[in-house]
Amino acid sequence: MKEYAYELKMKVRDYECDLEGIVNNANYQHYMEHTRHEFLLQAGISFAEMLEQDIVSVVARIEIAYKTPLRSRDEFLSCLNVKQEGIRYVFHQDIYRASDMKLAARGKVDVVCLVGGKLSRCPELEEKLGLPPTLP
Amino acid sequence: MKEYAYELKMKVRDYECDLEGIVNNANYQHYMEHTRHEFLLQAGISFAEMLEQDIVSVVARIEIAYKTPLRSRDEFLSCLNVKQEGIRYVFHQDIYRASDMKLAARGKVDVVCLVGGKLSRCPELEEKLGLPPTLP
Amino acid sequence: MKEYAYELKMKVRDYECDLEGIVNNANYQHYMEHTRHEFLLQAGISFAEMLEQDIVSVVARIEIAYKTPLRSRDEFLSCLNVKQEGIRYVFHQDIYRASDMKLAARGKVDVVCLVGGKLSRCPELEEKLGLPPTLP
Amino acid sequence: MKEYAYELKMKVRDYECDLEGIVNNANYQHYMEHTRHEFLLQAGISFAEMLEQDIVSVVARIEIAYKTPLRSRDEFLSCLNVKQEGIRYVFHQDIYRASDMKLAARGKVDVVCLVGGKLSRCPELEEKLGLPPTLP
Repeated sequence: MKEYAYELKMKVRDYECDLEGIVNNANYQHYMEHTRHEFLLQAGISFAEMLEQDIVSVVARIEIAYKTPLRSRDEFLSCLNVKQEGIRYVFHQDIYRASDMKLAARGKVDVVCLVGGKLSRCPELEEKLGLPPTLP
Repeated sequence: MKEYAYELKMKVRDYECDLEGIVNNANYQHYMEHTRHEFLLQAGISFAEMLEQDIVSVVARIEIAYKTPLRSRDEFLSCLNVKQEGIRYVFHQDIYRASDMKLAARGKVDVVCLVGGKLSRCPELEEKLGLPPTLP
Repeated sequence: MKEYAYELKMKVRDYECDLEGIVNNANYQHYMEHTRHEFLLQAGISFAEMLEQDIVSVVARIEIAYKTPLRSRDEFLSCLNVKQEGIRYVFHQDIYRASDMKLAARGKVDVVCLVGGKLSRCPELEEKLGLPPTLP
Repeated sequence: MKEYAYELKMKVRDYECDLEGIVNNANYQHYMEHTRHEFLLQAGISFAEMLEQDIVSVVARIEIAYKTPLRSRDEFLSCLNVKQEGIRYVFHQDIYRASDMKLAARGKVDVVCLVGGKLSRCPELEEKLGLPPTLP
């Protein structure tokens, strides 16, 4: 397994599975969102506080490759790394089935920040995430 | 079929079905919520405007009897009536499978209003819903 | 706090919250379903095995009283007890906000079993749940 | 607006919105899935019948660009085109806000077929979708 900045152990809930007995595709996006929010939280980033400073973070783009379907009762590891690319914060998010560490889904999520309603970099975020400073 | 104050035709979406091939129980609550909101909207009641006047409506209690499971591709009719009982607005909500008008689920949803954070009757709501005035 | 046969610690996920910043009502039903399934699992009851013996368990009725809304990031304790009433297995399910153990929601969920498509008691279930035998 | 093989008019349901008052990102995936299934249905393709012939269709990859957030009560048009690329059936799915036909989200969904458990082209599907025959 690669190294990740953050890992969260989760378990499939039956209501997340669909007709075919596998986790519905959209739920991986839920898993990834929850993992990002938990990651940001433990990094000391609060959406509430950011909102008070009129900073809103928004998902601009998502890309998910589905590899091995998760099923009822599967435990899984939801992992992420984050990189900065211009004004985008790119989260690389991998989900592994815990029983055999097989890759279940691989995601790439581009997040942008609106500061005062305008697309812009967000130094508060970068500092807390420990992202290396980039040239302007 | 009984008479209802409001009827909404809807259709099961596959992602609402679970492992057993039937609509997951919690989704009936979603159907009922959406029906209430559409009903209130066509009655000229806007949550946004109510919020501006510091009026919040809250579900206090829900009761659902599950009769016939809906399945993938089923169309259904989501119907409601509303009555006032003290400070409660009680929605009687029935869902019928469209193909044979069999009762799929029968719900009773108690909604209360918080005006300025305090439980109280909401005359604006009662007027628009055409509820008969009650003695204090 | 009362005594419960089973307790599960969970945490609100942001996507479970709605416009008003509180957990959407239907999600409490999801929490309760997941808690029942985890409880049954640790009691050695597998839906898959039950299905192979043509035993299907179905929620016949649900009743939830909403007390204190859960919010983003709240941790909570989802607890249950189960009793037999005739052919119904009645789950009493309480959800407490972990920070102050305030009751968030109180549910009563009636589950029935279809054995070979016919409503009937399910001795396998009763034995594993340790329910006292009832007179016929 | 471009030309599409299929268009479905839908409306945001309040429970699909999150804390920020906009439709949660994962729900666009639900909208797109529902649109694909409705499209396939009206093209005479039934998943149930396909399953009986041991044909399973699976989402292999999804890519969504989020453009303009949909909000409570927005109506929208969910449109699609489909192309074949090797063994992949690629759905191009655009969602427009109905009020001003602004692009809300643009998706690209790669679906593959497992025939008898093996990745392969699916002539039944291609015929019904009117896809041009490709060289082997």
